[in-house]
Amino acid sequence: MEVTRTLARYLVASRWEDIPERVRHEAARALLNWLGCAIGASRHETVECALAAVRGCSGPPQAGVLGRGERLDILNAALVNGISSHVLDYDDTHARAVHPSAPVWPALLAYSEWRKVSGAGIVHAFVLGVEAEERVGLSVFPEHYEVGWHITGTAGVFGAAAAAGKLLGLDERQMCWALGIAATQSAGLREMFGSMCKSLHPGRAAQNGLAAALLAAKDFTSSTRAIEAPRGFARAASTRFDPAVITEGLGERYELMSNMYKPYACGLVVHAAIDGCIELARAHDLRPEDVEGIELVVSPLVLELTGKKNPQNGLEGKFSVYHAAAAAFTHRAAGEEQFGDRCVRDPRVVALRDRVTATADGAVRKTEAYATIRMKNGGVFSRHVEHALGTLARPMSDHDLERKFRALTAGILPADQAEKLLRMCWAITTLDDAGSLARAAVAS
Amino acid sequence: MEVTRTLARYLVASRWEDIPERVRHEAARALLNWLGCAIGASRHETVECALAAVRGCSGPPQAGVLGRGERLDILNAALVNGISSHVLDYDDTHARAVHPSAPVWPALLAYSEWRKVSGAGIVHAFVLGVEAEERVGLSVFPEHYEVGWHITGTAGVFGAAAAAGKLLGLDERQMCWALGIAATQSAGLREMFGSMCKSLHPGRAAQNGLAAALLAAKDFTSSTRAIEAPRGFARAASTRFDPAVITEGLGERYELMSNMYKPYACGLVVHAAIDGCIELARAHDLRPEDVEGIELVVSPLVLELTGKKNPQNGLEGKFSVYHAAAAAFTHRAAGEEQFGDRCVRDPRVVALRDRVTATADGAVRKTEAYATIRMKNGGVFSRHVEHALGTLARPMSDHDLERKFRALTAGILPADQAEKLLRMCWAITTLDDAGSLARAAVAS
Repeated sequence: MEVTRTLARYLVASRWEDIPERVRHEAARALLNWLGCAIGASRHETVECALAAVRGCSGPPQAGVLGRGERLDILNAALVNGISSHVLDYDDTHARAVHPSAPVWPALLAYSEWRKVSGAGIVHAFVLGVEAEERVGLSVFPEHYEVGWHITGTAGVFGAAAAAGKLLGLDERQMCWALGIAATQSAGLREMFGSMCKSLHPGRAAQNGLAAALLAAKDFTSSTRAIEAPRGFARAASTRFDPAVITEGLGERYELMSNMYKPYACGLVVHAAIDGCIELARAHDLRPEDVEGIELVVSPLVLELTGKKNPQNGLEGKFSVYHAAAAAFTHRAAGEEQFGDRCVRDPRVVALRDRVTATADGAVRKTEAYATIRMKNGGVFSRHVEHALGTLARPMSDHDLERKFRALTAGILPADQAEKLLRMCWAITTLDDAGSLARAAVAS
Repeated sequence: MEVTRTLARYLVASRWEDIPERVRHEAARALLNWLGCAIGASRHETVECALAAVRGCSGPPQAGVLGRGERLDILNAALVNGISSHVLDYDDTHARAVHPSAPVWPALLAYSEWRKVSGAGIVHAFVLGVEAEERVGLSVFPEHYEVGWHITGTAGVFGAAAAAGKLLGLDERQMCWALGIAATQSAGLREMFGSMCKSLHPGRAAQNGLAAALLAAKDFTSSTRAIEAPRGFARAASTRFDPAVITEGLGERYELMSNMYKPYACGLVVHAAIDGCIELARAHDLRPEDVEGIELVVSPLVLELTGKKNPQNGLEGKFSVYHAAAAAFTHRAAGEEQFGDRCVRDPRVVALRDRVTATADGAVRKTEAYATIRMKNGGVFSRHVEHALGTLARPMSDHDLERKFRALTAGILPADQAEKLLRMCWAITTLDDAGSLARAAVAS
């Protein structure tokens, strides 16, 4: 069965006219969400370290580092912007597999500054890149992930190669090679979670996928059966491989339509509890000083992943459902600020956190929660969050995404520049020169 | 058990005075052999394609492309020189695991042009890099290789990271990170054999290993248990892991002492047959026109891997024991020339090739062969090659290595420059500035 070639053939043959309007709009949503995350993380220590290491080796100033002033060659720009995309753990998530945007947009945006490409062209390439990475990822999921591979790195590189290959106008044979060169660079271990290397994975995926397409365009050869061959990607990196996941329904359904956006700057499993706390505080104008206790009933997974009782810093705060509930209730928000060191150590938040209890219930889904607020005056307020905000059942609205974008870019880009950029994202498919968006996303 | 940290601690603590003289000399032998291979392949199509793809993105002219005039940034130089190291399949081989030089020397040589390092310093780093890559490779071998990973890529990146980390003077914690960053970039599939991607593997290993060390030097964090952790390298990429292979006997035995060099430009399994043919032709001054037939008795593996009866070009010739024997007998040599298109199509060689027979015998080892030449005049000459030239039992002499170096560099560097370079390799540990060797290895 020709898996790699079937995928390559689809990628090459796909026309912009084939992409439905709802998919195009979802790409714009993904762009806005991703760009906010990358700009918001642009001063993060992880980005600073990576820049310090590669700056002296970088080539001509072909593409900008988002939210900053530096210009790097396209491969290094893809690397650094790929890192900033993911470092806050705030980027988009496919319902079942790879974080779609972090490996793909950085490659495309860097390319768009180097060679002129239309907004429609870049959106088309993004849609196809997501299709490639999600299908490759899902074809070996979950065994591939369970054994230790970080699928956003290992499958993301296919997405970047496919997307960049589309912009480069590769023919079918070259597209096979690009996917093969991607396959043979596929890497990233889950053991890295908790270290800077976690966000290195989409960075390298973006960089190496772009390089794969550039090499293939120069007829650098590879296997044309890299995914399915006996000693190819799927067999080496997984005990499960379902080729039909890659080859069936191409052009009929779009994996991008299963994309989700995070309203809160922490793991998805805490979101329903946060929703409940914010909604109750807002609806009844409750103040933390008046609260006797917050009682949560959540999926057992929530306590397994985020059961930290006394987090000491922002990063640990992301792994504490207690802190998340207390901070969200207090601030009626759960963005980067609520998961910063200052908020985690704020006595007002700490005092409320000590009054949060969480009970695991196997009947509760991971995106569901029950929240009950007991007031000192005897009042009791309860809420059942059936689906957390941001899930496919209850997606973030375009307006929600705009608010998130503004919060992430505040203090990094001037408000008027951020607004302009926001409008460009929504209008991306009408732009004659997609590079204008990249150029508008750097600090002046 | 602390595997990654134990290795890191050894790498950091090792002193030049600890390295025995015989190991230092073996490093010089490896250097000479590797440099000849890289220079000899510097005009190869694979190198041209790679250069065409990355040239426009490369940074400052920090390091030279061996055998050529271009200068690239150190990361791209490591990539391209890593590719040329391996593209002829003529580079060195550890007796059981990774091709040691191709992932490590390119990183070190590029570094030496960028920051001053002594010849002793670079040899020390090379010895340690080989130790790291071979031990990591052997700890998961052979299951890791059998499932489809090209170990020269997947383990080679550890070697480059360790070696470059030593030059950068990383402390123990940083060295752990460098090994971790290497682990999470570990890649390369055997499915790529026969395509340009095979030599991309040591190229990326050299480049990514060097990058890992540069990142760690800037405190880019990683797991400190990247090799042994439940979701680390060994468990994700192999069903077998023996940590003691990495941690035991560090500084007592040296994997570099199990290094082998190829006298002939083809797979090891054909070497014994070639030895037999060359030795008989020389000893009795035999001419191909007078030969009735050549009869070989070889390991079954020889026919499995190199059983091609009618090769059509140079690359196919490498997979034909029949061509190898005929060409070696005719030319009394088996270098790149004998595996070029011209020789494979030479009527004189083709006529003799058709008179070569090969019989598989399970009692014959893969580095052993029996050769019998039946002459038209009734004469019969036989030879039993117990150990092929280049194996540990019968290593290539320093003189053999010099001859190989001269043949590989002829026509690329002027003879006097090649001789100067050869002398610098032997004297590497006395050089005040190892970069002078790299600078002497490019075309002027």
